[in-house]
Amino acid sequence: MATGSGKFPQMHPVSGFRLGTASAGIKTPGRKDLVVMELCESAFVAAVFTQNAFCAAPVTVAKQHLQTGAPRYLLINTGNANAGTGEIGLADAHKSCEVLADGQFVAANQILPFSTGVIGESLPMEKLLAGIPQAVAALDENGWTDAAEGILTTDTRPKGSSLQYTSNSTSDTSLAGDLSATVTITGITKGSGMIKPNMATMLGFVATDAQVDPELLHRALRLVSNKSFNRITVDSDTSTNDAVVLAATGASGVVIDESSFDQFVANLEKVFVELAQSIIRDGEGASKFVSVVVDSAIDSAEAVKVAYCIAESPLVKTALAASDANWGRILAAVGRAGVDNLDVNNVSVSLNKVLIVEQGCRAASYTEQAGDQAMMPEDITIQVSLNRGTATETVWTTDLTYEYVRINAEYRT
Amino acid sequence: MATGSGKFPQMHPVSGFRLGTASAGIKTPGRKDLVVMELCESAFVAAVFTQNAFCAAPVTVAKQHLQTGAPRYLLINTGNANAGTGEIGLADAHKSCEVLADGQFVAANQILPFSTGVIGESLPMEKLLAGIPQAVAALDENGWTDAAEGILTTDTRPKGSSLQYTSNSTSDTSLAGDLSATVTITGITKGSGMIKPNMATMLGFVATDAQVDPELLHRALRLVSNKSFNRITVDSDTSTNDAVVLAATGASGVVIDESSFDQFVANLEKVFVELAQSIIRDGEGASKFVSVVVDSAIDSAEAVKVAYCIAESPLVKTALAASDANWGRILAAVGRAGVDNLDVNNVSVSLNKVLIVEQGCRAASYTEQAGDQAMMPEDITIQVSLNRGTATETVWTTDLTYEYVRINAEYRT
Repeated sequence: MATGSGKFPQMHPVSGFRLGTASAGIKTPGRKDLVVMELCESAFVAAVFTQNAFCAAPVTVAKQHLQTGAPRYLLINTGNANAGTGEIGLADAHKSCEVLADGQFVAANQILPFSTGVIGESLPMEKLLAGIPQAVAALDENGWTDAAEGILTTDTRPKGSSLQYTSNSTSDTSLAGDLSATVTITGITKGSGMIKPNMATMLGFVATDAQVDPELLHRALRLVSNKSFNRITVDSDTSTNDAVVLAATGASGVVIDESSFDQFVANLEKVFVELAQSIIRDGEGASKFVSVVVDSAIDSAEAVKVAYCIAESPLVKTALAASDANWGRILAAVGRAGVDNLDVNNVSVSLNKVLIVEQGCRAASYTEQAGDQAMMPEDITIQVSLNRGTATETVWTTDLTYEYVRINAEYRT
Repeated sequence: MATGSGKFPQMHPVSGFRLGTASAGIKTPGRKDLVVMELCESAFVAAVFTQNAFCAAPVTVAKQHLQTGAPRYLLINTGNANAGTGEIGLADAHKSCEVLADGQFVAANQILPFSTGVIGESLPMEKLLAGIPQAVAALDENGWTDAAEGILTTDTRPKGSSLQYTSNSTSDTSLAGDLSATVTITGITKGSGMIKPNMATMLGFVATDAQVDPELLHRALRLVSNKSFNRITVDSDTSTNDAVVLAATGASGVVIDESSFDQFVANLEKVFVELAQSIIRDGEGASKFVSVVVDSAIDSAEAVKVAYCIAESPLVKTALAASDANWGRILAAVGRAGVDNLDVNNVSVSLNKVLIVEQGCRAASYTEQAGDQAMMPEDITIQVSLNRGTATETVWTTDLTYEYVRINAEYRT
């Protein structure tokens, strides 16, 4: 199950960024499961990773390489997470970087490895290494769609987002032939379960041809991650392998500086939000796409805390699966969120704009019929007003269905 | 679904404590849904309540009455939680206390009201009030079994625990005819979903005929709640109505003082743990009874945090439902529990004593076959050793099954 049309968008190629996909047979013979991404020499890379203490071997290695090398290639496999694999897992991650580096005449620490899939089994190295030349041979600026398929696990469909905008930047004419100042931002992501990113997400790879120095690139990545991948939850489980990479090739010659930074971030946020939402729309077993909006909180942290408490409540999520306007469960979740000195008599709740709770109890205007009507659509917005401040935050989530249980009780076995 | 035999135990009556049950037709005609409990004049009462900010009207009233009156009666209804009901809910809770008080010639603040059931609907007061004389007429020291049925909601079976022990106390001969020093402790509880008590639980009522002064009684209740009702979770949802009451009638004449306190607490803990575990054994949709034991933590708080993170992980719980020894999901939950400076290379995990993880990755001795075998029984112990301290804590939970989703998607509709 999944929500929304799931239509894969037109992907604008990003100059200076090529992608190649192969079928290495890592878990399922014949499926695309190995992706190589190549950055031009002028590119900068920013990345955020899982905060899970049991981070996977490739996460450890990618972090090391980011500190010491200038990344030129990303190497991504699905079918196996290379997590919980100890020293062998680290050696395997290093070895796969070395093999790709040797073939491309770069240093091993210029490769960032990423893995996703089953935890606790060693990588089938022979198959993986044999797939690398095949992926390299396929490198192409138009390789986004194949790559989007090549990183999936329990996802039911590929997930991409792409846009172009005209920057108000100055241009570096030594790099760009024209002065059109068009910036392209294109990205793909994967993820469907074990989704509650913490400062990062499942895998996400976004590239732009803008020229962005490392400090600005990191700042942009932090800003937009906190409005996208760090605002989603399927099941409150933070993965061991989450990573988001933002690459700026600079190939457009359009320079992002302080004067054009806000515009860049606003456009980057569009791509990031669309990618993050696409994970939720494809959340395991999802039959609803749910936006939990908490407004008039004292600060952002308070709004996020309440929103997650609702979004992670199994009782709220099962009620959503039944299209049941069970506002009592929403109130109970707000009440246990740990908000200091919450005056429940000020709390109001609406479901798809139908006011169901005001001043802490059932709204006088509310009817069961209106509630049933509000819960019919696939997209549901739960809006909670705390009426004690000015901060608003949104968290996106799914409902909890039989299908979620089936997928996770059957996966791996 | 439920686990264990569910056999209702022999309930020793507690001298000075009578229970009467009626069918008031609050939600379902003909079922037992109203319980009155009567305490003798010499009794003391201690109680703990939900920490949910949206506490129900009866919780608010019971707290007020505990501060101002000497409790003589508990009035409990199922079928309706009287929560999220605003001023009307408070007035209804007060009114029901007044009616019972008037009939029994006590003050209204000597009544403690408790409600459980659907949130957000007003109490059907006419039915409830009409049922009170019926429940009073049934008051009997042997009324425990009927009362255990009369407080249930989605529970599939009544839950009780009862024991007698010989106290090492001095006896108050003015009260007790003999000097046998036998103390009886008997209790009932209810709860199956919306179970993650926070300093309290769903409803629990425990009585003893020991003579315990209020300060010792409160201390005993806090101690044993933290080893029982505050160590269970079905779905991480804290109810608006949780309450546990401990009554000491003193009718046995056996005085509990500092010298006999530890023995009293040890026996009380047996009853509380049995009651708390009976909630988990009857957890909504449960097919497994799971003990999560975290040992060698730096302190109790750290052990509890890790244990809850495992016990509440939907991915761990669905793997348990599938009898899948998916230790990767357990490691991922340990890793995201937020333990400071956790050295994952020191972590080991066993499932029903089969070592599956040592030094942070798969144990050399582990085989899939041994893991499958370990997951076969209905009762599963997940033992996690952090190997950094001496604290051990246990949390009890269920698996997450289709049946849990069905119950909660269908309840109320």
